[in-house]
Amino acid sequence: MPKSYDIADCPVALTLDLIGERWTILLLRDLLLHGPRRFQDFQDSLPGVAPNTLSTRLKAMEDNGLVQRRLYNDRPPRLEYVLTDKGKSLGPIVRALREWGSKHLK
Amino acid sequence: MPKSYDIADCPVALTLDLIGERWTILLLRDLLLHGPRRFQDFQDSLPGVAPNTLSTRLKAMEDNGLVQRRLYNDRPPRLEYVLTDKGKSLGPIVRALREWGSKHLK
Repeated sequence: MPKSYDIADCPVALTLDLIGERWTILLLRDLLLHGPRRFQDFQDSLPGVAPNTLSTRLKAMEDNGLVQRRLYNDRPPRLEYVLTDKGKSLGPIVRALREWGSKHLK
Repeated sequence: MPKSYDIADCPVALTLDLIGERWTILLLRDLLLHGPRRFQDFQDSLPGVAPNTLSTRLKAMEDNGLVQRRLYNDRPPRLEYVLTDKGKSLGPIVRALREWGSKHLK
């Protein structure tokens, strides 16, 4: 389990408890940008992530109600990840990160 | 040194390279909210952080041009941390995190 930031009454810390772990925001970015994604898609776009880290992050996002797993093919069975409404509502945070990066780092 | 997200052309990843490490955003939050802070102030507001982690984060923020150390007393010498203009420009990101937390997690 990811560690808590342990400051229960700060909304910034509470948000970081959900999306502050390494890679989670880039998974969000991919889902916001491309829509439904398979596990393999995340591996392709984030070559630095170990598969078990990826699984752990996706599971935590599912537990926190940010993504859902959905069967998109019966035979063979294939799963994809889609953002929930709660997950989509994180868009402005990813946008703020992108805007700052575009402005200051290019 | 913090690991890079290794996706050199994505502005989201580039921003996370600067502020994606655990606690960095909460240090930013404190500096945006309270202005200049001493090392002890950060320890008081973030009781979960080991002092060496705190030093490492503040040093990285200094190396990345987000904070400066400033002497505010000669005898005994006392240091405080202040945000640079580049650091202040991260305000909208912290605000987006706060707004989401206030809306979804209370």
